[in-house]
Amino acid sequence: MEKQYVVGIDVGGQTSKIGVVDTRGVILAQTVIRTDTFGTDADAYIKELAKAVKSCIKESGKEGEIRGIGVGAPNGNYYTGEVAFAPNIAWAANQAVKFAEKLKAEMGGIPVSLTNDANAAAVGEMTYGAARGMKNFIMITLGTGVGSGIVVDGKVVYGHDGFAGELGHTNVIRHNGRTCGCGRQGCLEAYCSAIGVARTAREWLEMSDEPSALRECENVTSKDVYEAAKDGDALALRVFDYTGRLLGRSFSDFIAFSAPEAIVLFGGLARSKEFLYEPMMEAMNGNVLKIWKNKVNIVFSSLKESDAAILGASALAWEL
Amino acid sequence: MEKQYVVGIDVGGQTSKIGVVDTRGVILAQTVIRTDTFGTDADAYIKELAKAVKSCIKESGKEGEIRGIGVGAPNGNYYTGEVAFAPNIAWAANQAVKFAEKLKAEMGGIPVSLTNDANAAAVGEMTYGAARGMKNFIMITLGTGVGSGIVVDGKVVYGHDGFAGELGHTNVIRHNGRTCGCGRQGCLEAYCSAIGVARTAREWLEMSDEPSALRECENVTSKDVYEAAKDGDALALRVFDYTGRLLGRSFSDFIAFSAPEAIVLFGGLARSKEFLYEPMMEAMNGNVLKIWKNKVNIVFSSLKESDAAILGASALAWEL
Repeated sequence: MEKQYVVGIDVGGQTSKIGVVDTRGVILAQTVIRTDTFGTDADAYIKELAKAVKSCIKESGKEGEIRGIGVGAPNGNYYTGEVAFAPNIAWAANQAVKFAEKLKAEMGGIPVSLTNDANAAAVGEMTYGAARGMKNFIMITLGTGVGSGIVVDGKVVYGHDGFAGELGHTNVIRHNGRTCGCGRQGCLEAYCSAIGVARTAREWLEMSDEPSALRECENVTSKDVYEAAKDGDALALRVFDYTGRLLGRSFSDFIAFSAPEAIVLFGGLARSKEFLYEPMMEAMNGNVLKIWKNKVNIVFSSLKESDAAILGASALAWEL
Repeated sequence: MEKQYVVGIDVGGQTSKIGVVDTRGVILAQTVIRTDTFGTDADAYIKELAKAVKSCIKESGKEGEIRGIGVGAPNGNYYTGEVAFAPNIAWAANQAVKFAEKLKAEMGGIPVSLTNDANAAAVGEMTYGAARGMKNFIMITLGTGVGSGIVVDGKVVYGHDGFAGELGHTNVIRHNGRTCGCGRQGCLEAYCSAIGVARTAREWLEMSDEPSALRECENVTSKDVYEAAKDGDALALRVFDYTGRLLGRSFSDFIAFSAPEAIVLFGGLARSKEFLYEPMMEAMNGNVLKIWKNKVNIVFSSLKESDAAILGASALAWEL
């Protein structure tokens, strides 16, 4: 009989979450280890990770029944199984780590599949979440940055080199666009991430004397903007309106690429749904080619946020 | 034994080209009929087409050895086999014509596969042309308009509804962009098609008194601009430089989507290669995310232009 359980690992800059998952997306056991206490020693981290995975499997009572391990990691490459030049992880910042190969060896040969976090999220939504039954959709993760995973015909698009789906780094403002973390100007991520929302608010506060509750904050964050918007603060509401419009306008171009059934949103900033949804839909339908007008849905992740990263990564393992 | 020949049909606004093709892309026999002499009577056109296909097969001496028929047609939908609301074809301008189904019936059951011209061109390049051996590339057709066919993992991306790959209608100029044939503003097609090049030249001629050979032309066409550029006309050369830069900048965003190995160019305007190539490469590599800098090729179709449309359409039939 085919093995009926998988492991999902979400590698973040600070912590790595591990879970044992069944076919319906129930997490049977989970644990967390630090990612950032191993300096540049990737092997030490992977050894510690394998130890934690083994004890988590033991706790779930499913030893010998694990089909595979799925990993979502920053700059994770599906083809090579490497985590390479990931700025936020010391042990992978200046080298390419053969992550999948090493973890598989530590785990006694259990197969390991690896990709970046946004692609893992897309597979997670398709397997357990809002994109169940969809064969063509675009996952957009709105967190500190803007990530994306593109699904065509039921499969994640990896492209020639494994790095396809960097829609956070498509251009949204052509003239005098903000400098993005990638060094280029005018990227979607520089405007429509949590950091982008805070930057917009700070810029607008500086540009005028308009009263706003946000003037009380020492260093405005996207959460401050959200709280202020909830209290009806006019400037904060306009920041979300602007952010939603930029997203919608970009979506209209994304649609021309892969003609998805839906755009699926996930991440911290996606929680500001109530303020983003309408301007986003309006801008998308106002800018899209006629054949797609009012045809493409924008849906929000239906996975519990604390579980989503593990579920997304684990879903990769079903394809092994 | 499997049948070793296919038929390719390229449906254009004025004429339809038909050819019988072997596995290596040799056209054994070909013929042409009018597309535009049937008014709104789609059935009459399809009957005439079937007659021409049969006589072409007869001429090739391969009766009974035809595996299938591939059709490239404006607004052709791969999933439904329909040609629907194609503005330049009277018999399909205001209705959805069940083209594949009707042609198959007229042809005694030979299977028919249909898609739009740009997707057919992509399959043609992959099967017989510049994209042989490539599994991930983006085909851009630079003709009267700008069409595109996106290939991911060896397959054309059709999307949820069969209309994916309308990159000519992604935005390239955000503020006060030109009105495009699609009714929206600032589309790539409004700038980087043959018509777009002529518009740029005419706009620039009006805006200044700069001397240019193009002032002699009554109604400047892209061909005039090309001829003037060949003679060293400064304004004409700048028009191509501008066009190439806009294309390259758009390519940098397309790459972020599907991480292709190459962008493949085809069409009348692609003949201006000598003037477009450098600014295009410069703008692409100047705007693309670092991981793809100097990694993606721009290549030009290697198919004989008079044969390319038939070959592209015929290549679809190998997948039947």
